[in-house]
Amino acid sequence: MSKGVTVWFTGLSGSGKSTITRILEKTLRQRGERVEILDGDVVRTNLSKGLSFSKEDRDLNIKRVGFVCQLLTRHNVIVIAAVISPYKQSRESNRSLIGNFIEVYTKCSVEACAKRDPKGLYKKAQSGEIQHFTGVSDPYEEPENPDVICETENETPEESAQKIVLKLEEFGYIDKQ
Amino acid sequence: MSKGVTVWFTGLSGSGKSTITRILEKTLRQRGERVEILDGDVVRTNLSKGLSFSKEDRDLNIKRVGFVCQLLTRHNVIVIAAVISPYKQSRESNRSLIGNFIEVYTKCSVEACAKRDPKGLYKKAQSGEIQHFTGVSDPYEEPENPDVICETENETPEESAQKIVLKLEEFGYIDKQ
Repeated sequence: MSKGVTVWFTGLSGSGKSTITRILEKTLRQRGERVEILDGDVVRTNLSKGLSFSKEDRDLNIKRVGFVCQLLTRHNVIVIAAVISPYKQSRESNRSLIGNFIEVYTKCSVEACAKRDPKGLYKKAQSGEIQHFTGVSDPYEEPENPDVICETENETPEESAQKIVLKLEEFGYIDKQ
Repeated sequence: MSKGVTVWFTGLSGSGKSTITRILEKTLRQRGERVEILDGDVVRTNLSKGLSFSKEDRDLNIKRVGFVCQLLTRHNVIVIAAVISPYKQSRESNRSLIGNFIEVYTKCSVEACAKRDPKGLYKKAQSGEIQHFTGVSDPYEEPENPDVICETENETPEESAQKIVLKLEEFGYIDKQ
């Protein structure tokens, strides 16, 4: 049986968090692991309705997600949190709180994310229609020592997911296969 | 191994939710069950900071607590939620959402709760210092068919906790002893 752990994705909108999450989830489920996903949609609907994109509200949101990750992690669930989480200190607080924690950085330039722009958000951010948009009109603090870096401009989502699986094995959170 | 279930306490401030929760938690842990508590303090600190006591915000709070209960319940945890939750529809929505759900009503008259007044809140509510206080200046909708009624004016907290343990056994959520 696996140990609980939080796999915390951080990265710009469009950097590949959701795509890699889906592949990772499928792989882990096929291996019989208990998995929960807390991605942007789940979080906005169930935990953070009404919060703005100010630094204060973003921090509150990340703290709230961290609380839920902590609860699930200590009951042996692998929780995949996939939220932009632009501030280093918020991520580090969650690492301290949760303990069993792997930080995954989906690294991708703003230019490449804006080119992908799957939801048309960069276009709106660049025209000013959306404000406080991370990478355009709001800061993103890169992780200094992430446990896994997914270079999503140079590797496939499958390769990225595989790197995370190997890290989970290496740290003993899941059994090797 | 137990099945996951949410034990949802509802009742006025001072009606005995926290006291019974502590005894129930201890009993379940001694039996080797996985338990989490989401009481008023935990919820206010970690999930609902900034929410008011309007009906809308109360409903949002209860929905949020229900979401977390659902996640934990489906990973075989016994979650004890102890929040006033004055509105019937909110409680019923959580029952539908979660499935494995036991509603516990800590029944106690407003007069008796106000006499206990462990936190001095009724005094403040009656003087108008606190507004929107359930049972004084805000409604409380009694459950029509709770799974367990704890008559906290006529039974000890230990007796109340024991009734809940028996109900958990009866419904097959925990093994009989």
